[in-house]
Amino acid sequence: MPSQEIDNKDTPNTEVKPKTRTVFYVSDATAITAETLSNSVLAQFRGLAYSRYRMPFINTLEKAKQAAMRINEKGKETGVRPIVFSTLVASDLASTFNEYCNAFVIELFRAIVGPLERELGIPSDHSVGKSHEIGDQERYNKRIEAINYTLSHDDGQTNRGLEEADVILVGVSRCGKTPTSLYLAMQYGIKAANYPLIPEDFERGELPHALQGIKKKVFGLSIRPERLSVIRNERRPFSEYASIENCRYETREAEMMMNRENIPFLSSTTKSIEEISATILQKLKIKADPHIRL
Amino acid sequence: MPSQEIDNKDTPNTEVKPKTRTVFYVSDATAITAETLSNSVLAQFRGLAYSRYRMPFINTLEKAKQAAMRINEKGKETGVRPIVFSTLVASDLASTFNEYCNAFVIELFRAIVGPLERELGIPSDHSVGKSHEIGDQERYNKRIEAINYTLSHDDGQTNRGLEEADVILVGVSRCGKTPTSLYLAMQYGIKAANYPLIPEDFERGELPHALQGIKKKVFGLSIRPERLSVIRNERRPFSEYASIENCRYETREAEMMMNRENIPFLSSTTKSIEEISATILQKLKIKADPHIRL
Repeated sequence: MPSQEIDNKDTPNTEVKPKTRTVFYVSDATAITAETLSNSVLAQFRGLAYSRYRMPFINTLEKAKQAAMRINEKGKETGVRPIVFSTLVASDLASTFNEYCNAFVIELFRAIVGPLERELGIPSDHSVGKSHEIGDQERYNKRIEAINYTLSHDDGQTNRGLEEADVILVGVSRCGKTPTSLYLAMQYGIKAANYPLIPEDFERGELPHALQGIKKKVFGLSIRPERLSVIRNERRPFSEYASIENCRYETREAEMMMNRENIPFLSSTTKSIEEISATILQKLKIKADPHIRL
Repeated sequence: MPSQEIDNKDTPNTEVKPKTRTVFYVSDATAITAETLSNSVLAQFRGLAYSRYRMPFINTLEKAKQAAMRINEKGKETGVRPIVFSTLVASDLASTFNEYCNAFVIELFRAIVGPLERELGIPSDHSVGKSHEIGDQERYNKRIEAINYTLSHDDGQTNRGLEEADVILVGVSRCGKTPTSLYLAMQYGIKAANYPLIPEDFERGELPHALQGIKKKVFGLSIRPERLSVIRNERRPFSEYASIENCRYETREAEMMMNRENIPFLSSTTKSIEEISATILQKLKIKADPHIRL
């Protein structure tokens, strides 16, 4: 079974070529949990580079053996034993894999599931492929509904149903509203609309009309003008729209308006989508239908 | 500091009211890693219900202490000690939290980071808030680029630049192409276009013209007609479009076309976005620029 090469290098360029370690994500399901946790953990180690490979859907004994042998080959090839983040759940899969694999294996579930069984007083299913199952169909449908809502309320496309939003992001064009809205919908099942602040709003000196009655759902994003100018220049090079003067004007006016209207906002300049989203959720204290959240 | 209630109940309704346990995600960053891993692990325990609370950005000693005390209160209130999934990295934060907290604490990093330090032969940073940092700016930009690409190539909006796609999803209207494309872009930094198969294509008996030269990038989604009819009825109740006869016709024709054209496809009926995405990635063996993947 083929593994997928993910990444060659995870650290900034340095004078000395960093030592490269090979990392595998092995799972009986999507391997997304193994990858997420491994990215978080490896972010703590600087000065190393990683070649990363995904091995999802390792759900038979034969595949577990093959996966182990592929990883061993890679170890021989590189001369350093690979690091494996495994979320294999079924004990026969895990033990077959461990029996054949010569790598440094971190078993994410084994360390957690055992103690949890004792705490909860019930045995776990030890069953394969559950991590990203649809699960509760109703919750899942709400998540899809949130994604569709967010798509149809991107960039102020329509004011219809805006009052149904859990949150409405505002800010100047290209400050990060769209990816953040989509992440909120996808990860948290939140109906996130977004609405641009444009020069006409600054001239009128007031929030777009559509937002005035629902201000408590509004959250602002801002951005450093230098960064905004770089982003806009990729879209429309040498335009007035992308010029540093215009970017300075728009971000200054937008921040003044948000201050005046008491709209909480944060700067997206150095923050990832995940960090912005988690901050918004915390600041607005969104209490959406508890079944929505994933 | 406020925690965010996430969920009240995680299991399907049963005759007997399931025992409820309280679960907290505690992190010095977004708490997304703690939440992802906890969802995977708790999926192994059936017959329990969970009240879940996020506590992101616990990045000072004072907040660590407050978080612990809030959790203790909850434990008193419910009469059962809460379960905590913690990704606190800095040892002073973790030890302060542990000192005050009476819950059942699962420290996701402690169990992993120590052994990894020995394996890698270098100390970890033990630094706060890194898990979801932007990290490599170039990689991060590619991810945003992929999201923008996917948005502008949703639902066959434009044929321009279609050859730049890493993958093009095809299938009948409402079979799950859009959420899957967005997930591929968001999670993996993959440029995923999507293109609807419509009755006109079935009458002509061939793939949409725009796809004919780039067939090796095309992947199909199908869906059970009964499920499709339910989904379409939510959009356009009692329409011909949503009727079970029409849904049967369209899915049958679409599958025949995909078989004839040798386009790999899978059914989205019982699969989550994550499962579909991981499968597509594996089947197409997409080797995008390694720096793209997150």
